[in-house]
Amino acid sequence: MYRIPILQMDRALLVTIQVDMEDQTALQLQDDLAEKIAETGANGVLIDISALEIVDSFVGRMLAAISGIGKVLDASTVVVGMQPAVAITLVELGLSLEGVKTALNVRRGLKMLAQAAAGEDVEQ
Amino acid sequence: MYRIPILQMDRALLVTIQVDMEDQTALQLQDDLAEKIAETGANGVLIDISALEIVDSFVGRMLAAISGIGKVLDASTVVVGMQPAVAITLVELGLSLEGVKTALNVRRGLKMLAQAAAGEDVEQ
Repeated sequence: MYRIPILQMDRALLVTIQVDMEDQTALQLQDDLAEKIAETGANGVLIDISALEIVDSFVGRMLAAISGIGKVLDASTVVVGMQPAVAITLVELGLSLEGVKTALNVRRGLKMLAQAAAGEDVEQ
Repeated sequence: MYRIPILQMDRALLVTIQVDMEDQTALQLQDDLAEKIAETGANGVLIDISALEIVDSFVGRMLAAISGIGKVLDASTVVVGMQPAVAITLVELGLSLEGVKTALNVRRGLKMLAQAAAGEDVEQ
């Protein structure tokens, strides 16, 4: 079965979604990510979707689910690299990616995660 | 056509290879990488192959080619995340990945690139 690799950066995990996902792959990714967050103590997850030319409600729900799982495990999730055409279609379709943070690219996403982590450190 | 996305980290580019590559995809990746290195001034390229269960001579040649192109454009290439079984098979087959630097995972690969860049700065 096809399994999406999860890369560990400093304190963030990075997932690059390159192919259209089937249900099983998406569920596997959620499981793998949850385990990896727990195992590594990562405080952030970056999901790059720059290779996706279509983001439908299925992918939208999956991103929201990952974001929710991350939140429970104390990791922020940021979706990065969305193609402009995809953004336009999402808005036209009324899909708002509720609860999902986005950033233009990986660099900005990492910065966003670093700021979130710094905020937490201040609060503690 | 399937096109492998190239992510830009700080001063390094990251490529995650997730599927078995065909000739056309491999050539496209080489072109894209060369352009992206020139465009971004990246000084390093990380290629994650943790999802590959087979590294044959075709993939080996492609990694060597990317490494060579990177070198000409003044960017170090590090291949990361090789599965232990793949490493064993490579050695058994006598494929030595000549001219290709490797690291255990993305974190170590990034560290290796940072050290290479620091070394250059000292020399300058």
